[in-house]
Amino acid sequence: MKEKLYIIKIGGALIDDEELLNEFLEQFSEIKEKKILVHGGGKLATILADKLGIEQKMINGRRITDKETLDIVAMVYAGGINKNIVAKLQHKKCKAIGFSGADANLIKATKREHAEIDFGFVGDIEKKSINRKLISKLIKLKLVPVFSAITHDKKGNLFNTNADTIASVIAQALSSKYDVELLYCFDKEGVLEDVENPKSVIKNISGEEFSTLKNEGKLHKGILPKLENALEAVKNNVNKVFLIKETELKNHIENHHAGTEICL
Amino acid sequence: MKEKLYIIKIGGALIDDEELLNEFLEQFSEIKEKKILVHGGGKLATILADKLGIEQKMINGRRITDKETLDIVAMVYAGGINKNIVAKLQHKKCKAIGFSGADANLIKATKREHAEIDFGFVGDIEKKSINRKLISKLIKLKLVPVFSAITHDKKGNLFNTNADTIASVIAQALSSKYDVELLYCFDKEGVLEDVENPKSVIKNISGEEFSTLKNEGKLHKGILPKLENALEAVKNNVNKVFLIKETELKNHIENHHAGTEICL
Repeated sequence: MKEKLYIIKIGGALIDDEELLNEFLEQFSEIKEKKILVHGGGKLATILADKLGIEQKMINGRRITDKETLDIVAMVYAGGINKNIVAKLQHKKCKAIGFSGADANLIKATKREHAEIDFGFVGDIEKKSINRKLISKLIKLKLVPVFSAITHDKKGNLFNTNADTIASVIAQALSSKYDVELLYCFDKEGVLEDVENPKSVIKNISGEEFSTLKNEGKLHKGILPKLENALEAVKNNVNKVFLIKETELKNHIENHHAGTEICL
Repeated sequence: MKEKLYIIKIGGALIDDEELLNEFLEQFSEIKEKKILVHGGGKLATILADKLGIEQKMINGRRITDKETLDIVAMVYAGGINKNIVAKLQHKKCKAIGFSGADANLIKATKREHAEIDFGFVGDIEKKSINRKLISKLIKLKLVPVFSAITHDKKGNLFNTNADTIASVIAQALSSKYDVELLYCFDKEGVLEDVENPKSVIKNISGEEFSTLKNEGKLHKGILPKLENALEAVKNNVNKVFLIKETELKNHIENHHAGTEICL
């Protein structure tokens, strides 16, 4: 039987709320099984770019990561946020070790190609982008990898990569070796039928149900990429995938039922 | 016989000069023996703090690292600079992996204590601060650790720590296991008798000679901490310690004679 491995993704809103982040990290550090944390960005990069007068560039409504923005994002995500999370986890006796995808070539991306838009320093990844052998070795050393959403192309360039995608692709890559459970933590109880009603959690969503919900316009724009990444994980042999509320992590791990499960 | 390990420290002036940095990293990546890189900061943190209107605080002529400054320094050193160096080394086929001292508790510092001055988030370290077992394991995995000058206290706080000291203390900690050669790389040919004359390199400096030169006021203020850290390394069983010019790294490794050797 494969060993259990939790891959847990947290986003910007949690990172921006110090009290909530501490509570989450406390619950995360108490997980006894093997685990990996993937974190997004939060408002800090935008605030910093604003203060420095770096304009956010948009083409056809899509955000462009130019060199100046990339420099900010790399500093904030892989430096400020990542090292603060690692220091906090170390305080909670969790053997955290922080990474960008450039470190030990853990995540090698390719620059996003698009017929009309140059997205700039944005990297796309797939299963083979992940250095799963080395990640497994680090896990065996009882370390807890903490990934920021920065990747590289092995040609000396850093890239900005979607953190939901990083979590999904790491989960896919490690599923041949571990019994992986991928958890997307966010500020809702799960995917809600009615966004105003926290009790309207949809317990399961299959690929087919996702398409229906999407076509009926019943899904918030913000949750679409998360669900697409979650489905991609399920399709690629990740054993279990859930969307859960950040503060329900411990409850989910112990009682196996909080949130929305994504299935085939 | 112990295996050879180079511990190489580079400073801010090199980091600020992209062309020179690339040349140095090329030479560094060609070293066949086991190796560790330690890097300082450069001007970027100061420029960023200036732009953000964060004033540099001084007490009795000593620099204070308040929380705002620490946040900037952690982002710039452990994020921007560290990840850029790692990405560049990966491009040169060097299996670099970037760290702050918080990662995997690799360097645990204690807040600097001083009777009159509160230096803020400044961490002091000693030999036992270094997680030498884990560093050795990472080196055995053929990885090349790249350290930024950020440490932590295992209570959730990050600290700013002198990069010369980090290099010296890591060298001391690993000397029981490896045949360590510690190289301080900077912009001079070595320690110079006459700072205007690059040919006036002092070939060897012992502890006694250092005291004499210091008392006679013959040493530049900037080189004093480097020499003190170098001497500390020699006193604590580091096999060889040199101060060399950054561009002479390859020449030094191959011909064993560039720069100034520090001896007992």
